Parts: sequence; structure tokens; C-alpha cells
Amino acid sequence: VCLLWEVAMIVLFGVFVRFGPEADAHWEEEKREMNLTSDIENDFYFRYPSFQDVHVMIFVGFGFLMMFLKRYGFGAVGFNFLVAAFGIQWALLMQGWFHSFKSGKILIGVENLINADFCVGSVCIAFGAILGKTSPIQILVMALFQVPLFAVNEYILLNLLHVKDAGGSMTIHTFGAYFGLTVTRILYRPNLEQSKDKQGSVYHSDLFAMIGTLYLWTYWPSFNSAISNHGDAQHRAAINTYCSLAACVLTTMAFSSMLQKKGKLDMVHIQNATLAGGVAVGTSAEMMLTPYGSLIVGSICGIVTTVGYVYFTPFLESRLHIQDTCGIHNLHAMPGLIGGIVGAITAAAATEDVYGKEGFIQAFDFTGQYRTRTPSVQGGFQAAGIMVSLLMAFAGGALVG
Amino acid sequence: VCLLWEVAMIVLFGVFVRFGPEADAHWEEEKREMNLTSDIENDFYFRYPSFQDVHVMIFVGFGFLMMFLKRYGFGAVGFNFLVAAFGIQWALLMQGWFHSFKSGKILIGVENLINADFCVGSVCIAFGAILGKTSPIQILVMALFQVPLFAVNEYILLNLLHVKDAGGSMTIHTFGAYFGLTVTRILYRPNLEQSKDKQGSVYHSDLFAMIGTLYLWTYWPSFNSAISNHGDAQHRAAINTYCSLAACVLTTMAFSSMLQKKGKLDMVHIQNATLAGGVAVGTSAEMMLTPYGSLIVGSICGIVTTVGYVYFTPFLESRLHIQDTCGIHNLHAMPGLIGGIVGAITAAAATEDVYGKEGFIQAFDFTGQYRTRTPSVQGGFQAAGIMVSLLMAFAGGALVG
Amino acid sequence: VCLLWEVAMIVLFGVFVRFGPEADAHWEEEKREMNLTSDIENDFYFRYPSFQDVHVMIFVGFGFLMMFLKRYGFGAVGFNFLVAAFGIQWALLMQGWFHSFKSGKILIGVENLINADFCVGSVCIAFGAILGKTSPIQILVMALFQVPLFAVNEYILLNLLHVKDAGGSMTIHTFGAYFGLTVTRILYRPNLEQSKDKQGSVYHSDLFAMIGTLYLWTYWPSFNSAISNHGDAQHRAAINTYCSLAACVLTTMAFSSMLQKKGKLDMVHIQNATLAGGVAVGTSAEMMLTPYGSLIVGSICGIVTTVGYVYFTPFLESRLHIQDTCGIHNLHAMPGLIGGIVGAITAAAATEDVYGKEGFIQAFDFTGQYRTRTPSVQGGFQAAGIMVSLLMAFAGGALVG
Repeated sequence: VCLLWEVAMIVLFGVFVRFGPEADAHWEEEKREMNLTSDIENDFYFRYPSFQDVHVMIFVGFGFLMMFLKRYGFGAVGFNFLVAAFGIQWALLMQGWFHSFKSGKILIGVENLINADFCVGSVCIAFGAILGKTSPIQILVMALFQVPLFAVNEYILLNLLHVKDAGGSMTIHTFGAYFGLTVTRILYRPNLEQSKDKQGSVYHSDLFAMIGTLYLWTYWPSFNSAISNHGDAQHRAAINTYCSLAACVLTTMAFSSMLQKKGKLDMVHIQNATLAGGVAVGTSAEMMLTPYGSLIVGSICGIVTTVGYVYFTPFLESRLHIQDTCGIHNLHAMPGLIGGIVGAITAAAATEDVYGKEGFIQAFDFTGQYRTRTPSVQGGFQAAGIMVSLLMAFAGGALVG
Repeated sequence: VCLLWEVAMIVLFGVFVRFGPEADAHWEEEKREMNLTSDIENDFYFRYPSFQDVHVMIFVGFGFLMMFLKRYGFGAVGFNFLVAAFGIQWALLMQGWFHSFKSGKILIGVENLINADFCVGSVCIAFGAILGKTSPIQILVMALFQVPLFAVNEYILLNLLHVKDAGGSMTIHTFGAYFGLTVTRILYRPNLEQSKDKQGSVYHSDLFAMIGTLYLWTYWPSFNSAISNHGDAQHRAAINTYCSLAACVLTTMAFSSMLQKKGKLDMVHIQNATLAGGVAVGTSAEMMLTPYGSLIVGSICGIVTTVGYVYFTPFLESRLHIQDTCGIHNLHAMPGLIGGIVGAITAAAATEDVYGKEGFIQAFDFTGQYRTRTPSVQGGFQAAGIMVSLLMAFAGGALVG
Repeated sequence: VCLLWEVAMIVLFGVFVRFGPEADAHWEEEKREMNLTSDIENDFYFRYPSFQDVHVMIFVGFGFLMMFLKRYGFGAVGFNFLVAAFGIQWALLMQGWFHSFKSGKILIGVENLINADFCVGSVCIAFGAILGKTSPIQILVMALFQVPLFAVNEYILLNLLHVKDAGGSMTIHTFGAYFGLTVTRILYRPNLEQSKDKQGSVYHSDLFAMIGTLYLWTYWPSFNSAISNHGDAQHRAAINTYCSLAACVLTTMAFSSMLQKKGKLDMVHIQNATLAGGVAVGTSAEMMLTPYGSLIVGSICGIVTTVGYVYFTPFLESRLHIQDTCGIHNLHAMPGLIGGIVGAITAAAATEDVYGKEGFIQAFDFTGQYRTRTPSVQGGFQAAGIMVSLLMAFAGGALVG
């Protein structure tokens, strides 16, 4: 299967994929045309450091985070590696057809690499729900279908609805998580509980998982700022995410300790819920959310996610027959929804006063056919984006499952 | 406690903290005013890659380095996480009041994030001295007091004495270490020795600690160059730190082998003493220390720190009743002092010949009221900075302890 | 030995090494002379993020990758640390004499740091062949001789033959691997097989090795693009490497599963063969290899390396008496050769049409005395570069061994 697919990739890349103007050897001429005076203006230097951080998050962060299962360390990190490596090639093609298609060719640059990693991130999230229940081939098949669905959903949101979602609260987290939950619902296995002892963690597997957690946590500001506009938007997205994540740690620890009988901290909460703050500002981080706004969002999500692990996960499993191995409903689905809603509110509340005249137009790209769109209308479209992501996730998940 | 503090943070951030001009949506107007032609001139692109490296050092590096205790892996990495996440919010406020306060608001940008991480670094250092003796709440209380003391000390050094300390030999390492040692002296517990067996390390905990060591080691050039002046100063700081660290590894290995009975290497030395070279050029790295100067400083500190682990730590514990769990006296206190002294000497030895006329003024910021300051006077102030840091550490540590 | 060498380093650095113009305090004057308008034009900002990634690869990546041996975790990571720290100082000197020597001084900047790390990378590769058979002193002596040989070989290739090899398929991988294999052949120990049980891996050691693998894998695009020309060349090198590595993972998994009896994946293949794609585009990544070309090269190398682990390594050991502990023949030697050949072909196939007139001249630096060189001649010289690297490796390895 892997070989066949790789051959297909080579053929499709051969037909469609070429270097974008900033990675092509014609760059010197391009520079003259765009009136750029220096090589440092190449998009590479704006985005490459963030790209590498995102790359580490997908391959090291997600891989190690899923290692907490004591009998499934290799499986988690190995299959994550396989699926992600396949997914980025497939995503370059699918997203390219929708977003970077020019005169018959997909022109790629560093931004495409980041987007491919983002798309694969949503596959890794879905993988977290079905971890331990499926064979590698099944996971690959899931990726084969999820990537195009992701690209379609992203196209509807970003191009048709003209929605902002640079950190992917909706496109990556909400879509990925509800897709995965739908798939795991369909693959429900009643006897899985008997092997419950394998689902536990041991001391060392938990320490490995902490590597994943800490890398995801420290690099999340890069995740949310990687494809924002140059300049202030990237800067702002990093600051907002930093603040939100810091707040999230404190409320997670507080609730984790409160909800346990002896006041001890639960490693699962520390490994997961501390990251919810990053998910929750995915849409709004590049907007003028303000640092205290980020603290509020982060605090709330830390609480929601921790409560989710204690009460929702058992409920989902026993009542709704959704076996959510890694608890992605708590870490990605709910915070993703919150992130989408916060984004809609922040967009609706935007004023020219806060953003400045030029900043306002730039932040929401109110140019061309969207010249006359108002913040409140934008807020409405953002909300519609959440709905579309949910629908795509349920329908797609049901089909693929 | 966590919840209450987080609410306090939200209120204080709401009142005081706003985006700085380079992260605000008014950046387009700012750019015109400052006559900048490109978004790449945003401070974000000068400092963000270094910021991410520093962020990894604080959360992954320090957390995993302290994991060497076999029964305290989670405690080390978990409490480090909690304290650091609380500390960065508190530090943004405290440092903001002293350094970035403009017309009633704290204006933050990527440099503030780095400074907050630095401040928390000093808390993590102090935490290393009391590791395993205190409850999480006690550590949080220590951070609550240490952060403002750090900010005051930093304000006295950088603003009142006009001292240079970009890598924090004085403000971070000397202050943090002697603060922590004073606290652990006051919290002396005679019976701790009976649980000595818990203080040991096992094979796997040592390998985890090596992750911390290697990340701190590789990213230290970013630590010392993160907030230096744009251009040559950042470049130079990275080179000096690289050289100093490389030299330090060799002398550490040499002395570790010489001081052991059978010539075997001691993991504790490799995990810690190899890092002393970074601490020791914290002040002088951005100056014209030259690569061979860095090698000399690094070599000496490798020796001092290794000898410290073999002879000073047992002495401190048995005679002075200072239980220094992670050996921060060897890794941070002594190299920090050496770093401060080297900085004072390097500053005093500066000439217009070596720096160039403009470079000289820029390197030490001899402008405005400091226009007439000479290198030797600067050297004197640098030395005074060491004294102030020590005094603040002892007084503050005694109080908080 | 370490102390003596460190003293020698200090003396030699004192005599020869100074800051380059972009790290020197005279930068302000330099900027005026070179007509640069901003500090961001300092080479530091073009290369520092990639440098840090390469630094992590050498110290964390290689160190942890070799940790798979269950009784040799500390040895691998500790000796790698020692050798690399010594090597970078020595390489700064040796490469400086050949490449950055101006009026009696070696002028260093961030590019020299990257090159020193590259040189040490080749030592770490050779170290992989003799891992577990030699004492630390023997390894240091090997490094002492390998570094100058590396610098001479690099000088012949880059300066005399005017060959392109930014990612080091020839200079780093082919040279380092065949050097190490020659050394291990000479150090052949027939009784080593009896301690075969020590050569195995255990679960945890394999997970640690995966940390090394994943960091090498994610940061390889930085490795191949770190010292390419500013602008499009760095951009292109990162994209090509990204594609090649992704393809390599799929074919590795496919063949690993096919060649095992029960279709299970072999951890050794996943840890190593997945990286071959990065080695194999080392020379050609900065050229117009195109994304599909990268996929083809990566796919082939994944197959070659996996087959190598299954069939060649036992053959080398039983017939040729080459004990290749880490299998560097599969991961570095063969893919390095392939990389050199692919580079020669890509260079020979270059046309002004594909590169654009200016891009063509810039990509291969066809200026000055090389103004009239044609692509096919360049291809011939690239092929000659492979031969020179092989000869230097065999001769040097025999001598040092």
C-alpha cells in the first residue's frame, strides 16, 4: 500500500507541483518585479523559524504525547510518523489544488509546507481518538480521506466564507476532533474495556509523554502565528498564545487538584489540559484579543478541559459509546469550539478605533469584493464557519468510519 | 491559590497590559512614522527565534535537568511547569512596571516575553536548591516574592547603574542562586539526610536529565544573545557563548575523570558543569570578549564547577547547613559571579580602537546622561552591580525563607 | 589529554581567531561600506535559526540516535558530547585556515559555526561505526585527525574543483562514513560477537533513540539549507529536503514490513532508514531538483537503506570483517554516494531556461575564472568530487585506523 501510494504521489507531483516564485531560481527577476531590495524579504525568512517549530510539534510533539500508553509507545510514535509523512505529501497536493493552483501547476513555498503540517495535525488529532483500536492500514485509509475533506472544509471557510482562522481552531481542531470522534463511535468495540489494563500508563511512559506536552506547549505560539500576516499580526498572535497558555496551566493545576480525592495532580490533565489554551485562541490570536483577553480564554479552557477529563470522557464512553483514547474531545473538540466562538466575538467587536484604519482592513482582509463587509457580518460568517466545520466533520467521519 | 492568583492576573492585565507598537494593529502607521520600509524590520523577526529557544530552555531544559532524582521526576517537571507558567505572567507585570510603563499602560512585545522567561529562569534556579523539600504552594509563594525582587534588582542594575547584563550573569544567575541558597539555608532540615537514598539517580532518570542538559547547552547561545542590540551584538554574543560552552565541556570531562577514584566520568558533572560556560559569559558575551577570551572563561568555569560538585557541595551541607539539591552553587552562583567579574573587566578594558567609534558608543549605550562615562568607570559600575545583586539575594532570600 | 588540548586551542585561537566583520563592533562602519540599510541584513538573521537546528541535530540528534544500545546509553550520548565539543573548536581552526583566512587571521561568523558543526557531524558518523569498540581517548584521537582531513577534502571539492555541496552528501556523509568504515575494518575484533547480547536494544533505549531520529528528521531541511545562498536557494533546499524525507518514510515502512517474516516493522529501520532521504539530497537540494525529483530520490534511498540493514550489514560483518555498529554504511555511505551522483546529474542537466539567466550564474557561482564553465563540465567535476571524497576517506581511515 505504502509503495503504491508513494508511486502515485511521485506521478501527481510530477504533473502538478513546481516551486513557487520565492523558491524558484528565477527569484532574482521576481525580486526586481516586486521591487524588493533584499533577499531577506523572501517569505522564507518570515516563516521558516515558525515552520520548524510546527514541524517539531507534529512529529515529536504529537508522537510523544500519545506515548503515555504503556504498551503502545512504539505504535503511537511510529504510526504517527508514517501517517504524518504520507499526509504532508497528500496535503501539499490537495491544498495546492484549492489554494495555490496557477495555470495548471501548484506552486509551493514555505507557507504550503506549514499548511500541509497543519492539515496533518488534524489527522493526528483524529488518530488520537482511535489509537490502539485500528491497524496501520486503516489509519492510512482514514488519512487518505480526511486530507481532502480538510482541504474542502478549509476552502469553504477561508475562500468562500472569507473567514479568518490562522491558528486553526475551526479548520484543524474542531474539524479534526469531531471527525475522529465520529469515526471512533462507528468503530465502537464493546470488548475493548477488558483490555483496560493496557490503557494505563507507567512512570516512564508518562515522562516520555511530558516531552510531547512541553514541546507542544512551548512551540504553540509559533503554531498560531505561523501563517498570519507579516509584521504585527505574527507578533500579536505569538503574544496572545503565550498568555493564554500560561493562564491555562494555572487553572488546569487548580481544577486537577480540586477534582481528585486526595488533592494530588493527575498526570493526564497536566499532559493535556495545559495545552487547551493554545487551541482556544487559534482563531483570535492574530486579532486584537489583548493579553488579558487571552488570559481569560486560557483560564476558562483549562477548567473546561480538566472537567472534561474527569466527567465527560467516562460519560462519552459509557453512554454514547465513544471510546476516546487520548481524550481529544476535551483537548481539541471543546476548546476548538470555544476558539471558534471567541474568534467570532472578537471579529464582531472589532472597530477602526482599535485596529487603526489600515490595520482594520489588513487584519480582516476587507479588500476587493469584501471591501464593504462590516465586523458584525464578519462575526456572523465566523460563526457559520464553525457550523460548516462541524457538519463536514460529522458527515465525513460517518462516511470514512 | 492558583485560581485566585489567576483572577488577580486577569484583573491586573486588564488594567495595565496592552500590545506594544510593533504588535499592535496600528503597526502600519508606526512603520511610516519610524520610516521603516518593510515588515521584516519588526522586532519580532530579530528576536522570535531566540525567544523560542529560551522558552524551550526554561520549560523543557530546566524541567528535565531536575529530573535526575529517581523519585521526583514528575515533581520536578510538573512543579517547574506550574511555577514557570505563573511566573511569566507575574514577571510581565513586574518588569513592565519598571521597564515598559508608558502613560499608564505596560506595552509588551517579544522582548518582554524573553525578559519574563529570564526572570522565571532565576526562579527555576532557586527552585533547584529547595527541590524535594517544599510543597508546591511554598514554591509558588517563593515565586510570588522573588519575581518583584528580581525586577527591582534588574531596575537598579540596568537603569540606575546603567550596567550591561544581556545574558544575566548577575541579574539571573548570581541573584537567583544566592537567593535560593539563602532560602534553603533557612529551611534547613537535619533529618533530610536519612532519606538520602531518594536523592540518588537511576539510569533512566539520568538519561532524561541529559535531554535537559543538551537542550540547555545547544540553546544557550540564544539565551545570551536574545536581548542584545540588533546586528553585530547578537551575532557576537552567540559566537562567544558557543566557544565558551565548547571549552567548558572539555575541562569538565578532564576534571570529572581526574577527581574520581577510578577515572570514570560522573554523570552529575556532565549534566551540570558543562553548562557553566554559558553562565560565565552572560554579561560579557555581547562585548568584544573575543573567541579565545571565551575559551579561557569557559575552561576555567568547567574546572571551578566540577571541583565545586566534588568538594564544595558536601562542605556546604555539613558545615554551613545549606542543602543544595541540584548543586546550584556550583552551576549558577560561582559561574555567575565569575561572569559578573569577567563582564566588569571586559567593560573596563574596552577601547575605541577595538570597538570603533560608533560601535563603542552603541555597545555600552554611552548616550544622553552617560555620554561622558569612560570604560573604567563602566567597569566599576559593573562590579557594583554584582554587589547589589548579592545584597538583594541575601536580604530577599532571608525574608522569603 | 582534554586539558592539554584545551590549552592548545586557547593558544591557537588567541593567535588566529577574530570576529568576522558582521560580528565585530565595527559593523556600523561595515554596514555603511556595504550600503546596507538595516541590521536585519546581517548574515546572522539569514542563518541563525538554521544554525540552532543543526546544533540540536549534532548534539541531541546524533547523541540520542546512538542510544539504542541497551548498555551504552551514557557512553553514546556522553562521548558524542565530548567529541563534538572538542571537534567544533578544532574545526573552526582547520576550516578557518582553508576558507576564512584573511591577513593572518581567521574571521568567524555564524556560517563558520555551522560549518564547524557540519565537520563534527562527519566525525559523529564515523563514531557510529566504531561505537562500543573504542576508548574515549581513541575516539578523540580519531577526531583530531579526521577534522583536518575533512577540511582538506572540503577545500579540494569546494575551492579547487568548484563543486556545490551545501548539504554535504559528499563532504560530510560519503567522506565520514567510508572513513569510519575503514577505521572499524582495521580495528576488527573477532571476539566482539560473543558480547552480541549487549548490542541489542530494549524498549526504553529504543524510545530514546526515537527522540534522536525525530529531531534529525524534522530539522534536516535546516541542515541542507543552512549554508546555501540567501533567498531562493535556502528556500528551495528546505522544500526539496522536506519532500525527500517524507517519501523516504513511506518506502522504508513498506520494505521494512515486506522483509520481515511476520510483516512487523523493525525499529532499527524506522530509526535510521527514514533519515536517508535527507542524506540523499544533500548536494542537489539547493538546485532545481523539483519536488517530484526529491520524492523519487527519497523513495529510492528509503528502499536502499532498508535493504542494506537486512542484507548488507550481516554481509559486511561476516565476509569483509567490517563491524558497523550503527549501520552507517546503510544510512550515510550509500545514500551519500547516491546524493553525490544525483547532484552531478542535476548539475549536468541545468539549463538557463530552468534557472533563468541570473539564477543560473548564481546557483553554480559561474563567475570569475568559472565564467565559462558549462553544466555538463560542472557535472563532471561533481562526479570527480565523489571520487576525491572516497579516496580521502579510504586513505585517511587506513592511516588513522
